[in-house]
Formats: sequence, C-alpha cells, structure tokens
Amino acid sequence: MKDLVNDVLNATIENQDDLDDIFDIWGIDPLWHEDDENGNDRVITWVGFWRYPETKQMQNGSINFDGETLLPQGLYMKFDITGRDSSNWGLIGILYGDEYYSSIEEFRSATQDSSFTRYTPNMPGDWVGTDKTGKSLPLETEAPPMSVQPGGQRFKVDEDNKYVEWMDFTFYLTFTRDTGMRLYDIKYKGKRIIYELGLQEAIAHYAGNDPVQSGTSYMDTYYGFGPYAFSQIPNYDMPLYAYCMNTTFHASELSKSHRCGISIFEHDLNHPIQRHSTQSYVSVTKGIALTVRSISTVGNYDYNFDYNFYLDGTIETVVRASGYIQSAYYAKNEEYGYQIHDGLSGSMHDHALNYKVDFDILGEKNTLVKHVIEPIEKKYKWNNQTRNTMHMVRKEVTSEDEGKMNWSANAQEQVIVVNKDQLNKYGEPRGYKIMPSRGGAGMHLTITNSSNLLNSAGFATHAYYVTKQKDSELRASNAWNDYDTARPLVDFDKFFDGENLVQEDLVMWFNLGMHHVPHTGDIPNTVFSTAQGGMIITPHNYLLSDPSRQSSQQIRIDYDDDAVSDVYTFGSEAASGQVDLAQVSWDPYTYSGDVAVRKFPYDPQNPFEDTESIV
Amino acid sequence: MKDLVNDVLNATIENQDDLDDIFDIWGIDPLWHEDDENGNDRVITWVGFWRYPETKQMQNGSINFDGETLLPQGLYMKFDITGRDSSNWGLIGILYGDEYYSSIEEFRSATQDSSFTRYTPNMPGDWVGTDKTGKSLPLETEAPPMSVQPGGQRFKVDEDNKYVEWMDFTFYLTFTRDTGMRLYDIKYKGKRIIYELGLQEAIAHYAGNDPVQSGTSYMDTYYGFGPYAFSQIPNYDMPLYAYCMNTTFHASELSKSHRCGISIFEHDLNHPIQRHSTQSYVSVTKGIALTVRSISTVGNYDYNFDYNFYLDGTIETVVRASGYIQSAYYAKNEEYGYQIHDGLSGSMHDHALNYKVDFDILGEKNTLVKHVIEPIEKKYKWNNQTRNTMHMVRKEVTSEDEGKMNWSANAQEQVIVVNKDQLNKYGEPRGYKIMPSRGGAGMHLTITNSSNLLNSAGFATHAYYVTKQKDSELRASNAWNDYDTARPLVDFDKFFDGENLVQEDLVMWFNLGMHHVPHTGDIPNTVFSTAQGGMIITPHNYLLSDPSRQSSQQIRIDYDDDAVSDVYTFGSEAASGQVDLAQVSWDPYTYSGDVAVRKFPYDPQNPFEDTESIV
Repeated sequence: MKDLVNDVLNATIENQDDLDDIFDIWGIDPLWHEDDENGNDRVITWVGFWRYPETKQMQNGSINFDGETLLPQGLYMKFDITGRDSSNWGLIGILYGDEYYSSIEEFRSATQDSSFTRYTPNMPGDWVGTDKTGKSLPLETEAPPMSVQPGGQRFKVDEDNKYVEWMDFTFYLTFTRDTGMRLYDIKYKGKRIIYELGLQEAIAHYAGNDPVQSGTSYMDTYYGFGPYAFSQIPNYDMPLYAYCMNTTFHASELSKSHRCGISIFEHDLNHPIQRHSTQSYVSVTKGIALTVRSISTVGNYDYNFDYNFYLDGTIETVVRASGYIQSAYYAKNEEYGYQIHDGLSGSMHDHALNYKVDFDILGEKNTLVKHVIEPIEKKYKWNNQTRNTMHMVRKEVTSEDEGKMNWSANAQEQVIVVNKDQLNKYGEPRGYKIMPSRGGAGMHLTITNSSNLLNSAGFATHAYYVTKQKDSELRASNAWNDYDTARPLVDFDKFFDGENLVQEDLVMWFNLGMHHVPHTGDIPNTVFSTAQGGMIITPHNYLLSDPSRQSSQQIRIDYDDDAVSDVYTFGSEAASGQVDLAQVSWDPYTYSGDVAVRKFPYDPQNPFEDTESIV
Repeated sequence: MKDLVNDVLNATIENQDDLDDIFDIWGIDPLWHEDDENGNDRVITWVGFWRYPETKQMQNGSINFDGETLLPQGLYMKFDITGRDSSNWGLIGILYGDEYYSSIEEFRSATQDSSFTRYTPNMPGDWVGTDKTGKSLPLETEAPPMSVQPGGQRFKVDEDNKYVEWMDFTFYLTFTRDTGMRLYDIKYKGKRIIYELGLQEAIAHYAGNDPVQSGTSYMDTYYGFGPYAFSQIPNYDMPLYAYCMNTTFHASELSKSHRCGISIFEHDLNHPIQRHSTQSYVSVTKGIALTVRSISTVGNYDYNFDYNFYLDGTIETVVRASGYIQSAYYAKNEEYGYQIHDGLSGSMHDHALNYKVDFDILGEKNTLVKHVIEPIEKKYKWNNQTRNTMHMVRKEVTSEDEGKMNWSANAQEQVIVVNKDQLNKYGEPRGYKIMPSRGGAGMHLTITNSSNLLNSAGFATHAYYVTKQKDSELRASNAWNDYDTARPLVDFDKFFDGENLVQEDLVMWFNLGMHHVPHTGDIPNTVFSTAQGGMIITPHNYLLSDPSRQSSQQIRIDYDDDAVSDVYTFGSEAASGQVDLAQVSWDPYTYSGDVAVRKFPYDPQNPFEDTESIV
C-alpha cells in the first residue's frame, strides 16, 4: 500500500527503508481481546502511523526532538495478532478520516473517488522542539534567585539501609522496577505513622473517534517507573546542594543503577509556617521542608514524584507531569479535544495515579472516621428563635462495603485515621487527617467501566478507598495486568469483601490525577504549573500542641512605641559569611545515566563486556 | 456580681481595677437586632469573659503573649445596648454551663444550689506562648537552606505609579484601608487579561452552643486589611533580597504608611516548570515565579496574601492563615469542636475569602464557558461493540440566572473565560481557565442562610459567581455591612438580576476558604501548612504554544552511549562567584512599623506633633 501512504500521508516513499525512515507504526495499549465467529478469543491491535521528527531534512546539525507523539498521521490499521506465529497474523481493516475500510482494496478504491477528503498531515518542524525560542524576556538571562545551603546538611542518610533522618521524622526508601521509589516505616517522634507509602499504578486513559486514541489506556507500571527514573539535573531538577542517592533495580536479567535517581534536600518554602503580629511584638517561624524526589520519564511523559515533610508533622505526596503529550490526528473529533496545530488534536485523557498508604497510628488498630461539618437549624436555651448555624457530626467507616469514597462537596467531610483506643489527655482519639493539598483538575477516571481497562482499574473509579491490610492484597495493580485486562493478576475490586474496618490494620488507597484536554499551551511540552496534584497527611489531635514550636528557626521582635526593645532568635545560627556558588556548581559535561551490571554469566545486553555505562 | 465572678471564674477580685486587670469582656460581631414586645428594634450584644494573658504573675521579665482568644471563661451576658444613651442600656440575661439565667439574682441563687456545676477555668500559662519550646531538633539550630539572588533584580518597579514589570507581565498595585492590596490592569504580552484582581471580604463564621461563638461572624473589612498590613520581617516573611514597597492608607483622619507592607520577589520553585528526558538528550527549564505579598493581622488571625506569576502565563491567588484561633469555653459543646486544653474547645468556624476578578480577555466582550468531561457509551464505525469511553461537551453560562456555581465533582468541568469573537488560528476561542490550585479544606460557607449574616453573605454561599460588570456593583461587600446585616450597604445577591452574560464585560467572584475545626495542633498558633487555599488563572488556547519556551533559564544536555556531547544553556548566566550573606543580612533592631501623617490642622492621635513613628 506504498501508493496509498504516499497519497494520503503526503510522502514520497519508494521502498521499505524509506517507510521505516519516515514513519513509526504503533498503537493501542492494552491489546484487545475479541471473539471471532466461532467464539475463539482473538488478540487484536490497532496501530497508527506516526511521523518521526528525525527526518533527514531536520538533521542540520541540530537535535532531533522527541516529538513523535505530536505527529500522528491519521491512518490506522487493525490487525489480528493472535498467537506467536506471525504467519497467522493479518490485516482486518483500515480507518482514515473517520471512514472504515475492510480491506486495502476498498480503501484504494475510495481514494480514487472525487469525493474523498485528504486531511492536513502533521509534519515535523521546529514547533516540536523545546529549546528557547521567541523574543528574549527582559532581564531574563541574568542568574535568577536560587536556593543555597549556607550551613551543613541538616539531615542524615544511611546509604546502606536507605534510611533517612530529618528533624523528628525517620523513614526508609525502597526502589523497584515497577513503581520506582516508595517509603517504608515512616516514624514521627519515634512512633510509626505509616508502614508503607508509595505509588501503585499510573493510568493515562485516552478517548477519541479513532481506535488508537480510544483504545489507549496506559498502565505505566507495565513499562515500569524504575527503569526510567533517570539522573536528576543539578540546579534544574533539584538544588545544587541536594543529596543524591543512586537507584538500583532489576529488569531483564540486569541490575541497573541510576546516579542521582533520588534527590533529597531541604528548602525554604519562601513563606513562614507560623506568624503573629501584635502591638508589642511579632513572632515568625521559617517554613522549611524536606523533599525526597524522583523523576521518571515513561515514554512521552515526565513524572516528578515528591514526598515533602514539614515541621508541623505533615507529610505531603505530590506528583507533577511534564514532557510531550500523546496527541491525536484532527479529523472529525472536535468532541475529543481541541485543535492545537495544523492537523493535530490535543487528545483528551485522564490521569489517575494511585497511591497506597498503610497507616499505623499508634499501633495497627485504626479506624477511619469522618467528622462532617453540617448545617443545622437549632433553637438554643438563650434564644427564642431558631437559628441557622452548623455543627460537627462524627461518623465511622465500619466495613469494606463503605470503603469506596469521593471527597465531599465543599470539603465538608474531614477524613481522619484514628486509633480509638488511644485518646489524648482531653479524650479525643489521636489521629492523622488526610486531604487534598494541590491541584484542582480531578482525582479519578471519568469513565467508570472502561472498555479498555475492564477489571483492571478498580482503584481509579473513586477518589480514595480503605481496606483491611492483608499480605495477599499488597498492591492495587500489577505490571502484568496490562496483558489481559479482563483477567488481571490483581483485581482491586476483589479487595472489597465486606470485612470489618473498625480498629483494624487499615490501608488507604488514594488517587492524584488530572483531566487533561491539551490546549495550545501544551505545545511543545506540558508544564508542571497546571499539571500537578497533592495529598497531605497531617496530625489531628495527635500531639497536645503544634510541634513546629520546637523549631529554633524563628524570631521574636519586641517593641514599644519608640523602638525595638528585644530580639530573640532561640539559638538559631544566622546564615553569614560568603556562599561560594562555584563550590556547589556542577559541570553538566559530567552528567551520566544508568550503569548496568550483568548477572553472571549471561549479559543479554552485551555478551562481550563485564559492565557498561550508558547514558 | 463580683462574688459570682470570683466563684465561677476562680478569681480573687476585690474591686473594678482587679476585674479590669484580669478580665476582658467582649462578644458578638455583628450585633443582633431583635424586636421587643412592642415591635421596636433593639440592638443586642452578648459578651463573654476572657482572661488576659498578661496577669501580674506572668510578668517575670518575659513577654505577655497575645493569647487572650485562647482564654474564654465560659460566662456570658446579654445586654440591650440600643441607642447612644448608655443609661438606657441593661443586662437581659446570663449564660453559664449551658444554663440560661434571666437575672443576676437567678444566677446567684443557682450557684448556691449543691447541684450547680463549676467548670474548669482556662488559665494563662506558657502554653499560650509561641516561643521555641520542647526538645531541640537534631541539627536544627544550623542555618537552613535559603533563597538568594546572586544576580541583579530581574523586575522593575515604578514606585510612584506602583507599576510592576516582570518578564511579559505588567500590573499596578493599589492599597486601601478596607481590603489592603489589589492588582489592576494585569497585562500579559502587552494585552490586558484582568482589569482588577483583589480581595473583597473575609468571613470567619463561628458556631457553638454559647451565644458568643454562635453569634460571631466576622467580616474583616469592617476592621480593614490595610491598617493591619504590618511590615514584613526579612528572612522570615520574605527573602532577604525582596523589594519592599511601603503601603499607605487613610483611616480616622490620618494617612499612614507601613514600611514594607508589600514585598515583591522572584524565587525558584525548587522544581522545574518543564522537563523531558530521552535516550539522547534531556531538556529542563527552571521554575521561577514572581510573588507579590502582603500580610495582615486582623485581631487574632494573620493572613498571608500572595499573587504569584509564572512563566507559562499563569497567575495564582493564594491566601494562608496563621496566628491565634478564637476558641470557645468547653462546656456541653462536643458537637461544635474538639476539646484542646483544660477547659477549651477549638471553636469550629468557616473561613470564606471572596475575591473579585474582572476579566478582559482580548477586550471586554467575554463569555464564561464550561468544557465538561463526561462519560459516554458510544458505538464507532470501526467497532461492533458499544464502548464505555468519554468525550467533551461544551456549555455556556448565558445569564446571571446561572451565575452562582460550585466546582464540579471530580473537577470534570473546565471553567474558561473566552472571547468568542477572538478565535485562534485553529478556530478555538482564546481564553483563560480558572481552577483551584491549593488547599482542600473547602471553599464557601457551610451555612447557607446565616442568622448572623442575613443579607450580607450572598458572596459566600457558592464557590464562585459570574456577573456582568457594572460600576454600581464594584465590590461584593462593604465595610459597613457589619452594622446591620439585614440591611447591608452592599447586598451581593442583588447583583443577580438575569442579565445576559454572553460576550459581555464579565466579573468573576471566587472564594478561597477553609472549614476549620481547630485541634490540639492549633495550640498555640494555626500553621500555614494546612491552612491555605489557592486559585489559578491560566492561558487556555490563548497563545499558539507554551510561552515558557522563551525562557533562557533552561538546559539541554545531549549525549550518546559514551558521554555528553553537547550542553546548551541558551545565553543564561550561570550563578557564579560568591554570595556575601552579610551584604543582604538585616538587623532586626531596625524593624519599624507604621508612620502616621496627620491631616492639617487636626491630628486626632497626637495634637502636639507633626508626625510620629509608632511600631
């Protein structure tokens, strides 16, 4: 069908090599299962043509940007690829311009009709590049403000045990192929708060009038977050002074390490954590946080994963997305996205990133309670009239039958994990509250019974879930779920079998996400400013007062009508002297990527060398 | 009733001076209006006893902390205070321990009964102080990371005109007594986006079983944000290198200035705005923002107001709350808050801070549209089966009858202000999207028809509103609304009179807020970590690509299997050399507060001096 490709995709290919140079062909994920006329299960794929950015015309000494996902060509083919014997595979149909053809011949015949519409092809060009472009902004080449560490590092890392201590927090880091970084045994003031905190799965669910977009619902643990957690760039991905931890994971018979796959650093939030002014004094405490970061580029998307720790005992989970969108060809699909370039649709999709948090609040016996703010009409002893006011109603989630939940309208439900047997001095159960902290673009999938994900997306139908902890229910998803979403290795829905949740070992599963209808501002890359979500877990009647009062990094200035009378800085050392920016500068020519260590005796990557360093 | 006060409040007062030394007496806001038996309007107040933190016992050379709002005593009195002639005022009733007494005699008689319950009084002590307390945290006295500005200031301020230019943004700042800082004529790339952006009103609506808490619904513009926008503390409230702008406002026949009432500074977000890794290169752009900040302490609460500007054209409005809570006496009021100290309830309350944003997107003819992500079941030409998927539905808000709205469940509505007559190259209307960005504790009041606020809180019943711009509808509230909430000077509800909103000059009014049920962690002060809300306004099909690509502050590192081949920094100057921390250090003994300039010839504050400087 060389002639057809040349015709509808505006190409001049003469042979297979030309085709392979210009076009990439790939498609849906996960694959479909369809019954044939005899009721036999067939494995189906739909593929589309995508144009490579690296055409010969573009290789004028400049880089080939990774913008292939911005170059869909609008030609789709359906194949039966059942079984390992590719001689039994075959073309089933073709789609172009929202018209379906059941054979190449039928398609060829249609193109020869005068009524056939040829759509604008998406061609490579500078517009897919991310380099600086356009007018320089005023004063913008000058070095901008930056974070420096004038004193020593104020946290400890035991690299052997991946154990981190910052202020009154301690925790362990782990790293795996499927989900990348996870945190274990998070203790605050010597007592465990969380046994495990980490990513479970990341869905990117597309929709569209073409089968490739409609059929795409990535579950990214299939590709793995570990292998793609590349080295972070000092001064750009993290402050220059950040502590770098290598990440190691095992995949395809190789153990690999990425240098600086995890960065750990303190930083000033550039706003205080506490303040109060009065007529006679002012008191302000610095807002300092510890951030633990990993960044994984899974195909087109770059995910920034942060865990932030704050001086008031709060733990925050943040995810941000940048990188290239996966776009759609723009043909009769106005209801699935905006037109954002010549023949391009910003293909609408939902992100849902599921996290597990295994709470252990003062032991393993915990209960999820809701303290709900509700309006009431009430008559009081001190007033003859009924008053419109509000009060707080205490509720409990008692079994897994109630375990699938959404954040309430206007956030009137406070969601708290408590240990009902551990009351504070005033009789309130000690707990940690959980609530969204960043982002406002949605939490879970729009689609509730996805034709692509079938029984594999039970964790993405609601904003959050609570189940009883079981060693047989360790993860919400599995990397192999992608192979057969009707019969997944882990079916999250099956976790909900009515078990008691009162004073049990509880696991919460929450989603961070985004409904993303890319607009022109997503060209060439999505930016983190708008594409982020966060969740905080924060002490709630847990201690008897605010623990940030332990911080020395505060000031109190006393004054009277005339002048400052006293200044207190509570033993904190003022930053002084010189910070030599060269001392902490970094030579980008030293950047390096992953290091592969083969498993003796067989190295599938390179049988002739012991180790290799590839970027 | 000296004997009664001594009895139930555990005091030893002998005369009026003792009473005034130990107790403060204040109460509801706004005042009530009640009809008497003849149908005449009476002005009613309920007051409570509060203990001063500054008792003689505490003045051992240490400061008296401002913790009076943590020391309610649980004794309440109702007065008729109609008219200016105080000789007509009188006591109507008394409340103690949730029992109502219609006279002092009745109360005295009750106290003499053996069944009378005396509750735990709230006594002053170190627990109301905010100074460093408890165990020092490891490594914590060492100087923490901080933000420095190694180059010059990269924005311009025209102080005379309060005009700011940063990158491709320009705007004017104004400052008034009622609402503090507001922004006008915000332009991006030379075109106006917003005519006006600023705070309208801040409600703090309490509830409780006692009349003082139940009757308290502060509207803080009554007190004013301008007079209480005190000087910011370098290195704590803002980076040392921040640009300081004085604020000037007029109140009570005085023009006053606060030094550094507004700070303006750039800072690194400590995460990039864009990144993408590939097998052959990595591209990362720094996340740099400009923040414009003012901080107002209105009584017990400290509000931090930020406007943030980002390189992708996004504008963010943020508010945070710290300072002392207003608490309640803990007696039979479990449903209105947690017990958080001996006789103390963290009195539940809702914050709702209303902002006006007068959009002018490519002119004054704008329309508010909703692009809604909806699930659908659909059969496509290329598939025999009906598929569960999603699509986008475009809706419009056509008149003020639809002008009161809440953010949709799971954020499936994208809310965009467009100019329908200004289509981009691809036929999409150019616009700015508005959505919540921070906080998750609620947006608007729980109570919909408050007995306290009556006709004065129309702007706080929903998350956001849209109206047609009118010079007669300039503000959502008025400082004098507090005097008679049934007959307010500005009744926001009256703005909604069915006017057309399609291609008109639109004003949006949005709320940031929080349901706050203070827990032990709010002792002594609420912390900013959990008490914040934010809203972003971000380009949506407005330009043809992401404008952060203009930034020089990016790096591209090219590599192959062996090593880095090229590094590009696009003309950006690397920070180098030494930053002398002493050069930008600040002596807290130079801190100073407001400067009052009298109106000739009468100075109500000080008739004998021309000017005075008071802190």
